[in-house]
Amino acid sequence: MAGGFFQSRWVERPPHVTERDPHGLPRGFRAAGVAAGIKPSGDPDVGLLVCDEPGCTSDARFTASAAPAAPVTLTRERCALERIRTIAVNAGNANAATGRRGVEHAAKMQGAAAMASGVREDQVAVCSTGVIGVPLPVDDVGRGILACAHALSADGGGAFARAIRTTDALDKQACVEVTLPSGTVTVAAQCKGAGMISPRFATLLCFVQTDAAMSAQTCALLLGTCVKRSFQRISVDGQLSTNDTVVLQASGATGVAVEPETEDELRLGEAIDAVMRELALRCVRDGEGARRVGRVVVRGGDPDDVGRVARAVADSPLVKTALYGGDPNWGRIIQAVGQALGAPGGVGGRAGLGGPGGSGGAGGPVPVDIAIEGVTVCSASAGVDHDAAALAAAVARDEVEYEITLPGDGAEAECYFSDLGHEYVTINAEYTT
Amino acid sequence: MAGGFFQSRWVERPPHVTERDPHGLPRGFRAAGVAAGIKPSGDPDVGLLVCDEPGCTSDARFTASAAPAAPVTLTRERCALERIRTIAVNAGNANAATGRRGVEHAAKMQGAAAMASGVREDQVAVCSTGVIGVPLPVDDVGRGILACAHALSADGGGAFARAIRTTDALDKQACVEVTLPSGTVTVAAQCKGAGMISPRFATLLCFVQTDAAMSAQTCALLLGTCVKRSFQRISVDGQLSTNDTVVLQASGATGVAVEPETEDELRLGEAIDAVMRELALRCVRDGEGARRVGRVVVRGGDPDDVGRVARAVADSPLVKTALYGGDPNWGRIIQAVGQALGAPGGVGGRAGLGGPGGSGGAGGPVPVDIAIEGVTVCSASAGVDHDAAALAAAVARDEVEYEITLPGDGAEAECYFSDLGHEYVTINAEYTT
Repeated sequence: MAGGFFQSRWVERPPHVTERDPHGLPRGFRAAGVAAGIKPSGDPDVGLLVCDEPGCTSDARFTASAAPAAPVTLTRERCALERIRTIAVNAGNANAATGRRGVEHAAKMQGAAAMASGVREDQVAVCSTGVIGVPLPVDDVGRGILACAHALSADGGGAFARAIRTTDALDKQACVEVTLPSGTVTVAAQCKGAGMISPRFATLLCFVQTDAAMSAQTCALLLGTCVKRSFQRISVDGQLSTNDTVVLQASGATGVAVEPETEDELRLGEAIDAVMRELALRCVRDGEGARRVGRVVVRGGDPDDVGRVARAVADSPLVKTALYGGDPNWGRIIQAVGQALGAPGGVGGRAGLGGPGGSGGAGGPVPVDIAIEGVTVCSASAGVDHDAAALAAAVARDEVEYEITLPGDGAEAECYFSDLGHEYVTINAEYTT
Repeated sequence: MAGGFFQSRWVERPPHVTERDPHGLPRGFRAAGVAAGIKPSGDPDVGLLVCDEPGCTSDARFTASAAPAAPVTLTRERCALERIRTIAVNAGNANAATGRRGVEHAAKMQGAAAMASGVREDQVAVCSTGVIGVPLPVDDVGRGILACAHALSADGGGAFARAIRTTDALDKQACVEVTLPSGTVTVAAQCKGAGMISPRFATLLCFVQTDAAMSAQTCALLLGTCVKRSFQRISVDGQLSTNDTVVLQASGATGVAVEPETEDELRLGEAIDAVMRELALRCVRDGEGARRVGRVVVRGGDPDDVGRVARAVADSPLVKTALYGGDPNWGRIIQAVGQALGAPGGVGGRAGLGGPGGSGGAGGPVPVDIAIEGVTVCSASAGVDHDAAALAAAVARDEVEYEITLPGDGAEAECYFSDLGHEYVTINAEYTT
């Protein structure tokens, strides 16, 4: 990976962190990936990741969709999330919107992975990604899992990462060494995602492993914090997948114990955070057909407002097309702010025609300041003179930063987003049927 | 207008309604439009509409944006909305995000229109549409208003309609005669809008006139109901403008009195409803670069849920690109349903990674039925066999209908939406700077 793993100006490699071969795995883990005939392309499509330490701890996060895929439902209900040892993944079929049969297939997948890896069924998580609404070819998946079990190896991280991909164009894996006061540990991660949901190929998946020893509570704390600062801050097309799953596992194989509220925990957290943020940014950069990545930072007095505004700007097709076109169009930013803070509503409210005398921002507009790449373009909701040529040059770069200031202070939210260009339309409209 | 005004299969011409020359106006109204040099193209850009009846009644609806444009703020605050006689409009500049100076400019526009039409200032509504964040060339607008005043005529509806346009490609005006039990009245409307907000050109504007006599309360009732069933049910890009304004005026010039809860009111309401619905659909069809129009109807037991789902489907870039590509991709519909009914959230919540064990739809997926053009493709959230070739042919037509059934009954919501194609990207990314 030319230039190393940490490529965005928005993620710094923390001190105490050294990059290793990105295909590596921490001690106590083995992985494999094989082609089992699920992807029509014949590419690898079944992956297996196993922790050989019986004392392994873990935690997981899932999609918030009300239409979760069968593997999400099954893993939530029939897997002990604090002691996941085996993860079985297939790409090419999401096993979503597949009804009761889909859950039976996910259970079969879990059983096959348990048997193949010699682990109790309730310590196996299953994930799928791919086409929605088509029955899973579960026998092919089972054969793939068996083949993986025979191929498991300590340097199988690369094969596993390849097998979980769908439309991803960029590599999304990392392996770093972290120097803790109590000893040296390794953190590795394998991720896929190029759109919250791609052309009938759904999902963000991210698997993170470390060989530090820690309690399931510490796993939960670190994973919760890091997910909030990474995958919960990105938007490709604002669309929530049916299959999103993120898992953190700690094998403890180094014997380096990470206790709560210690320097060990802080440094390990920084490392996991940086790895997950860079992976999340890479999902945005790999967003279907993306040319540029935007970062919006919103500051103000109301935590809900700053979050809503950041998401509205990141999801706006008008802001995204302007980013694609290299157009510093702040009128679209203020439009998105006005919408985010305006009157709510389901059908209709969004169209915005309020009651007599007007609902929404009765009186004047909310005072908003906007800066793009450090250049203030709008103050108290009115345009200010600025060097348009310098700004135009700045927004033509790969990463563009937008800062929005609402009234009050103390709250801040950020979001990373891809642009919206012809390639997105082509991928999503023309290559699907 | 080939084929008459009512062109969509989703809007029927009501009985008692006869189409007239779409450029006509009801009795008691005069209008004009001139080129005042605000649009760089030199096209007409200032319009004036005046009711000559001092007893005119009216009502208005505005954008719910928290960043409303200056003319919206001014009209809300300094215009008696129940007796608007004069409407002054400029296109080419939205007078939005223009600060205190923008409000002063809107006040000047109101003053000029009052003087030019011989009407009290507080009976003048002002509207602007066009570029955001650039000071209004208020002297040009003033001169345009004066020129309009000299050109006002009973058949000036066409000139007025042309002057309020920005990126509109389709004609959006109508004039119909309505036979009421108490006599015959006329309803006319002039509308603009091709995107909730176009490339730096914002806004939906719609002006409706009738020569029936009715109270301001009846105006409010009819306008409120009809806006809910038309402009509040459309989505081009899900983006709320800073300038949306809809006005209904009744001159009373025919002397035909429309009393509450009479057959007169019912028929007049049907006529206004049909005109506004067809105009709203035309805005969708004219949605920037749109090729096809979708209609989503959601039925279920929870009014909030059905509204949220309808809006989520209509706003989904994945559903819109599938519509563009003529792809009956129901996986994307179920994905949007899952997102709409999943765990809420600002930054992060939408990305969907819930807590341990999963937030959102814990347990299995919500059972959803989906039919496209009358063909059931999904039942209880699992795909069902159907004639794929017939369905593919059906979704290649100009109008595509999606029906979604959630658990329960008694609630229904619908939304009309445009597709998302290369033309949208081109218009919004490439022609703006």
